[in-house]
Amino acid sequence: MNILDIINKTKRSEPLSTKEIKWLVKSYTDGEIPDYQMSSWLMAVRINGLTDDETVALTLAMRDSGDILDLSCIDGITADKHSTGGVGDKTTLVIGPAAAACGVHVPKMSGRGLGHTGGTIDKLESIPGFSTDLPFSRFAEIVNETGFAVISQSGNLCPADKKMYALRSATGTVDSLPLICASVMSKKLATNAACLLLDVKYGSGAFMKTSEDAKKLADLMERVGIAAGKKVKAEISDMNSPLGKAIGNALEVKEAIEILQGKITEGYLYELCIRLTADILMLAGKGSDEECLAMARDSISSGKALNVLRRTIELQGGDPAVCDDTSLLPQPQSHYTIRASSDIKINSIDCEELGMVSLILGAGRISKEDSVDPTAGIIMECKVGDKIASGAPIMRLYSTVCSDFADAAVRAQDALNYTACRIATY
Amino acid sequence: MNILDIINKTKRSEPLSTKEIKWLVKSYTDGEIPDYQMSSWLMAVRINGLTDDETVALTLAMRDSGDILDLSCIDGITADKHSTGGVGDKTTLVIGPAAAACGVHVPKMSGRGLGHTGGTIDKLESIPGFSTDLPFSRFAEIVNETGFAVISQSGNLCPADKKMYALRSATGTVDSLPLICASVMSKKLATNAACLLLDVKYGSGAFMKTSEDAKKLADLMERVGIAAGKKVKAEISDMNSPLGKAIGNALEVKEAIEILQGKITEGYLYELCIRLTADILMLAGKGSDEECLAMARDSISSGKALNVLRRTIELQGGDPAVCDDTSLLPQPQSHYTIRASSDIKINSIDCEELGMVSLILGAGRISKEDSVDPTAGIIMECKVGDKIASGAPIMRLYSTVCSDFADAAVRAQDALNYTACRIATY
Repeated sequence: MNILDIINKTKRSEPLSTKEIKWLVKSYTDGEIPDYQMSSWLMAVRINGLTDDETVALTLAMRDSGDILDLSCIDGITADKHSTGGVGDKTTLVIGPAAAACGVHVPKMSGRGLGHTGGTIDKLESIPGFSTDLPFSRFAEIVNETGFAVISQSGNLCPADKKMYALRSATGTVDSLPLICASVMSKKLATNAACLLLDVKYGSGAFMKTSEDAKKLADLMERVGIAAGKKVKAEISDMNSPLGKAIGNALEVKEAIEILQGKITEGYLYELCIRLTADILMLAGKGSDEECLAMARDSISSGKALNVLRRTIELQGGDPAVCDDTSLLPQPQSHYTIRASSDIKINSIDCEELGMVSLILGAGRISKEDSVDPTAGIIMECKVGDKIASGAPIMRLYSTVCSDFADAAVRAQDALNYTACRIATY
Repeated sequence: MNILDIINKTKRSEPLSTKEIKWLVKSYTDGEIPDYQMSSWLMAVRINGLTDDETVALTLAMRDSGDILDLSCIDGITADKHSTGGVGDKTTLVIGPAAAACGVHVPKMSGRGLGHTGGTIDKLESIPGFSTDLPFSRFAEIVNETGFAVISQSGNLCPADKKMYALRSATGTVDSLPLICASVMSKKLATNAACLLLDVKYGSGAFMKTSEDAKKLADLMERVGIAAGKKVKAEISDMNSPLGKAIGNALEVKEAIEILQGKITEGYLYELCIRLTADILMLAGKGSDEECLAMARDSISSGKALNVLRRTIELQGGDPAVCDDTSLLPQPQSHYTIRASSDIKINSIDCEELGMVSLILGAGRISKEDSVDPTAGIIMECKVGDKIASGAPIMRLYSTVCSDFADAAVRAQDALNYTACRIATY
C-alpha cells in the first residue's frame, strides 16, 4: 500500500478499503507518513467526504491506535455521555449523578478544556479539594459505590486522534463531518462504556451552525457507534443562547447543584438534563421513554441525585458541603455588571464570543500549561427574545485574576445583537 | 493575512485576492508556511479549482519568486516554445533552427529530463563535445549570431515552482489544470521571450489523456500568457503514438537532423514541426498563416535550418559534422529487435510505458544525479493502426549500459495492444 494511491482515491471520490484506512492511520501515527501527505488526504476528505463504511473504518482504526479501557471491573451497565461542546454546558454534572441515582454506572473520563469552553474537569476542580487525578482502580471503586466518578484522561488513548486533530487545526480540515465523527467516536469507543449518549449542539455557540448539520453529524455518529457494537443515541440541542445562566467553572457547578437541589425546575437547561438522563436510562434498558423521563425527574426531586454528587465529591477529596451551601465554592474578587442603556430586545447572542469573554476573564486556557481562574465567568441575565428595560442588568462579569473588565465588557456587549424596543410600564 | 483564512476560502470555493496569492507564494517560498499547510491548500485547489484571475495571480507570483531573465541583449524578436512533455518529442531541435532561419531569435533555456521523458539538454549533449553549460552572455552572443542556442537552466528561476512541484509530486496534487498552468507558465514567463508557443499534448504518452482536457489546459495557458503581456499560442497535438520513430537521446537527434536534411518530408512529426514553426513565425508577425507555413517548409527544404543547427552546434563546442553524417553520433553497443510472432494489427500504444522502457534501457534518469546513456532508446517500426506481418520488426531496442534486454523487451511488448489480423500476401 502507498500513500499516494490513497490520496488519489479520496481525491477522486473512490472509496478506500478498511485495510487501506487501517494502514493509513497506523502509518501516520507511527510517523511513517509525514504531515504534508496526511494534510493533503485530510483536505480531500474535507471536500469530498467519506462513505459511512469508510467513516466506521477510520473511527475503529483511530480507536485501535492506543489503549482501550477495560471496564470489566465496574459492576452493572456503564454509560458515557459526550457533548460536541457548548458555552455554559454543565449538563454532565447533573446527568451523571441523576443517571447513577437510577442505577446506571457513569464512569466519566474527561479532558481539561482548551479555548473558550471549559472542560468538566475544570468545573469539578473548582470544588475545594476535589481531585480528578486518581488511579484507575480507585476510580472504578468510586463508580461502583456511588455510580458516578470523574477522572482526567490519562494513558495512551487514541494517539492517532491527538496527532490528527493537531494537524487538522493547522490545515483548515476541522469542519468535516466524517473527521469530527471519527475524532469524537474513536475516543468514546476507547473509553468503552456500553451505552453512549451524544449531545450534538447547533447554533452560534456550537460547531454546527444549523440544526440540519447537527442532525447529519448526530445520525453519522449513531451509525458509527452502532456499527462498533455500542448502544448509542444522539440528541441534537440548541446552543443559540448559553445553556443556563452561568458560564465559568465555579459558577456552573453552582448552577448544576441548584438543579440537583430542586431550586431550578424549569427552563431549557433543566429540561435538557431530564431529556438526556432519560435517554441514558433508555439505552440502559430501564424502561419506556415516559418511564425514563419520570425516573429522571424523580432522581432529582427526591434528592437522590444530589446524594450521589455529594458522596462522589467526598470520595474524590472535595468538600461535600458545597452541595448544601454553594457559597463555599470559590468567590470572585471583582465583578462588573453590564446594564441596558435603553429599552432593548435581544435578537441573538454570539455564544462563541461569550466563551471568548469568559476566557479573557480567566475561566479558560489558551495553552495546556495555563491555569484557570475557578471564580471567573459570566452570569447571563438575558436570553434570546428577552426584553430588558433601560438600566436593568444584561450580564454580570466575574473574575479574580482579571482586574480591568474593559476588554471583556466591550466584547460581551458586542456579542449581543439587540434592537431598541418599547417596554410598557404599568 | 493568515494561511488558515486562505485555505478556508479555497476550500469553500471563495476566490482569493491577488494580494493573498502573492503573500501565500512568498511566505511558502521563504519557508514561513510549512509544507503541511501548503499541501492542504494545494489539495483544495486540485479539487475545487481556481478562477482564471486566481490562476493569473498565482502564475505571476511564482514568476516573481526568483530572477526574471533580461533578454534585452538579444537582438530582434525572441520566441520560446514549450511542450507539455511527450515520448519521442524532438520538435525543438527542428523548430528552433527553422524559426531562427526565418529571422526569429530562439534563446532556449531547458532542463534535464527527469523520469521517462528526456530533456532537450540530454538530447543535445549526446552530440560529441556539445556543451549547454555556457555563461548567459555567451549564450546571447550565439543567439545573436545563429538565431538559436540552448543552455541549461541556471540561476534562481521560479524557486516557488521548484518547491511547490516537489510537494505536489508527493501529495497527489500534480493533476490540476490551474497548478499545471501556473507551473509551466511561471517558468516560461521568467524566461521572458516575447513570443511563446505552447504544444499541449494528449493521449497515452501525455499528462492529458483526452484532447478535451488538453484543449482546456491550452486555453488556460493562452489566457494566462496573454494576461502577462506575452504573444502566446497554444496548439494541441496527439501523443497516442510516439512522436516520430525514435525515442532516446542520440536516436532523436539523428531523426531531427534527418528532417532538417530533407530526408523526412511527410508524416505526423514532420507536419507538426512545420505547424509549430509557422505558429512561431505568426506570433513574431512574419506573415499570414499560409505565408508562415510556406516559410517554415522552405527553411527546411533550402537547408537554411540545418545551417543554423550546424553553426549552433559548432559554437556550443559540438562536432558540427554530425549534421552531415549522423553516424558520428554515439552508437549503441547492443540491440534487440522485437518481431511480430503472427500477423497483427496495432490497436493502441501505451507511450508512457515506452518511456519507461527507454528509461530501463538507460535513456532517462530517475534521480538528478543519474547519468544518461546517450545511445539508449527505441526505434519504433510501427504506429497505431499499422498491420505487421509475422516475423517483421515491431520495435528495435538499443543500449550501451544495459546488457540484458529481457525486462525492457517484455515491458515494450506489453505496451502494445494488438489483435491478430490477416495480411494479404501477393
